[in-house]
Amino acid sequence: MTELLVEMGAKARQASLTLAQLTTTQKNEVLEQIALALEKNTTEIIEANQYDLEHSTGLATKFVDRLTLDQGRILAMAEGVRQVASLPDPIGNIERGWITKAGLQISQRRVPLGVIGMIFEARPNVTVDSAALCFKSGNAVILRGGKEALQTNIKLAQVIRNVLQEQGLPLDAVQIIQETSHDLAQKFMQLTDYLDVLIPRGSAGLIQTVVNNASVPVIETGAGNCHIYVDETADLQMACDIVVNAKTQRPSVCNAAEKLVVSSQIAPQFLPLVARALHKYNVELRGDKRACEILGAQAVSATKADWDIEYNDYVMAIKVVDSLDEAIAHINQHNTKHSEAIITNDYQHSRDFTDRIDAACVYVNASTRFTDGFEFGFGAEIGISTQKLHARGPMGLNELTTTKYVILGDGQIRK
Amino acid sequence: MTELLVEMGAKARQASLTLAQLTTTQKNEVLEQIALALEKNTTEIIEANQYDLEHSTGLATKFVDRLTLDQGRILAMAEGVRQVASLPDPIGNIERGWITKAGLQISQRRVPLGVIGMIFEARPNVTVDSAALCFKSGNAVILRGGKEALQTNIKLAQVIRNVLQEQGLPLDAVQIIQETSHDLAQKFMQLTDYLDVLIPRGSAGLIQTVVNNASVPVIETGAGNCHIYVDETADLQMACDIVVNAKTQRPSVCNAAEKLVVSSQIAPQFLPLVARALHKYNVELRGDKRACEILGAQAVSATKADWDIEYNDYVMAIKVVDSLDEAIAHINQHNTKHSEAIITNDYQHSRDFTDRIDAACVYVNASTRFTDGFEFGFGAEIGISTQKLHARGPMGLNELTTTKYVILGDGQIRK
Repeated sequence: MTELLVEMGAKARQASLTLAQLTTTQKNEVLEQIALALEKNTTEIIEANQYDLEHSTGLATKFVDRLTLDQGRILAMAEGVRQVASLPDPIGNIERGWITKAGLQISQRRVPLGVIGMIFEARPNVTVDSAALCFKSGNAVILRGGKEALQTNIKLAQVIRNVLQEQGLPLDAVQIIQETSHDLAQKFMQLTDYLDVLIPRGSAGLIQTVVNNASVPVIETGAGNCHIYVDETADLQMACDIVVNAKTQRPSVCNAAEKLVVSSQIAPQFLPLVARALHKYNVELRGDKRACEILGAQAVSATKADWDIEYNDYVMAIKVVDSLDEAIAHINQHNTKHSEAIITNDYQHSRDFTDRIDAACVYVNASTRFTDGFEFGFGAEIGISTQKLHARGPMGLNELTTTKYVILGDGQIRK
Repeated sequence: MTELLVEMGAKARQASLTLAQLTTTQKNEVLEQIALALEKNTTEIIEANQYDLEHSTGLATKFVDRLTLDQGRILAMAEGVRQVASLPDPIGNIERGWITKAGLQISQRRVPLGVIGMIFEARPNVTVDSAALCFKSGNAVILRGGKEALQTNIKLAQVIRNVLQEQGLPLDAVQIIQETSHDLAQKFMQLTDYLDVLIPRGSAGLIQTVVNNASVPVIETGAGNCHIYVDETADLQMACDIVVNAKTQRPSVCNAAEKLVVSSQIAPQFLPLVARALHKYNVELRGDKRACEILGAQAVSATKADWDIEYNDYVMAIKVVDSLDEAIAHINQHNTKHSEAIITNDYQHSRDFTDRIDAACVYVNASTRFTDGFEFGFGAEIGISTQKLHARGPMGLNELTTTKYVILGDGQIRK
């Protein structure tokens, strides 16, 4: 079992050396061929997907929805691959360069990471997205998807691998782990000799399992207990619109707002206004003592646990504070370092909030929902990093690369 | 025991929020005070160090040397702190900025990582170096040194903490773990709620233990199985000088060369030349079949294991290859991704080698010994990263930071 992983790892490492040397034009041509192949193989892909759907009993409706592929979704996947082809290629960029005291000419070049491991759950589009992003950035990828989507994932990988082979490229640039036991997943997370990074995508539980068990470096993605602080100088209508958007536009995602923090100076006016707007979307409100006093029957009492929960649902907890300092301290204590917003018209408050809040993305007068690779203009994203190492915030192609120093000399030795 | 770590972590986190807001001038003044305090407390530091030396029985001579402090070494520490003060402060730099389609103004600002954990062995100068580098980059640090140096480390930390207190700063910006059990070290590596990164410094064994046991993100430093490839077009005298320098100038360090790879076209002329030069330094040579045929009694046979060993000693293994491709394949298979060099006068070979070798630093016609924060011009280093995530190669102040996106809007909501 471990031998299987070692073999896959060695093949991926070998393939990555070839991938690292491809030109941007070569890579884009292959991506176009992959898009065409996905379109051409729609029927077969749907058949594999049907098999998975028939054999996945007892899944919740939202999981079935994520798992299901139809022609429209496959065309969207192909379109996604073409979008990746259209993105600028970071490989080969020289980030900086200088000459040292010893006369060595150093340049720091952008290069692929090498071999990327992806661990994800039911959504088969992750297979195609990840393969395209990893390929464009010159990386080999080993994919370990959920067992519910296994046949779909195998078929999608096969379509991609066929294209690689037709193009004379190492088909092991994209591999899929076909045995979905937890034991093998554990061993995959320990494959330090062959994996340069592991990226988990999926539920908080999945991500925690990977963080706790991996010895391969992990990029942690996803968890978002996002706050919006409405300052006493806020335009209350703007604040209301932003809170409603951040909470309800897509509550299941990590950049949705989960907590509302309100200055006590405007709470009596603002809370009834925002509660009315949120109730139109059936948002359950959970207030601290002062919020409940203002909202009466419109809110229930929040418990201590509420401040740390990511609901991913039509629920929002509300805290009333007496100062910006109290708001910042509360947010820094309970946030997941994802996205936080202040709604204010006070210049100094906007500076203090953006300086002192510890998060990947800090907003003034905008919805937290903008934390997203597409909205940022990266064109695609492989996830949103909530850790501080390597990548923070939305990750695009650049975040799938590293650098190497190339040092040119004329015989220098160290004194 | 875990409560102790949680308490230290929480205090460090709190201190880091203050540190992140200090100006460069404030930080530099504190560093100058720390340098003065080290000089003023030389006698007390040497006393603590004497205690450690008297209670460390059975240590090898080189460990005793690393552990020992005298006035000169303490003055050198103070000088090191002043050097860190003189370095440019990366905090607050805006790395890039743009306006999105939605009209949001995004800027990516450089900020501290937050709380850094250091795990290291006998060298007490790591305590002062790390504290200075972490402080200058706005980070709190928790240090876990080896038990042999415990009293020295406690005294050094006390000197630094006294300065912080005098300056009205949180003294928990620099903390030392006083209980050196392995069990507590294990728990320290799992302190994900409070540590943003863990940096191990020391032997390969220590680093592997941390990589295998930590759930906190780790920056792997150190291991260096470095190669020098001498091409058929090399200036043989230059090649000889570089090999001797890279092998013998300081064999115990990670950027010393361990392996010599030689083109078969020049091996008959070059190997006797370089063997003579290396024998002056009593370097033991271990050759593959062809190298041994040429060198006769001047070399012993290398075993398969030799190609993967980092000797850190006056030993060098030699492999003869028939082509650049074979050299590159051999190096990519056995190297630790640290530093590799080609000695050549062939333009295309220099390009192929630098393009295709997978390592943090790739040299043409220079000694691998230049992989070093000071030689690179970073002014100081906290280690040399051999992983690809976050930092690769020598790590200075910049590598102790992360970024956050600050997004300014005018009420934007997501459609």
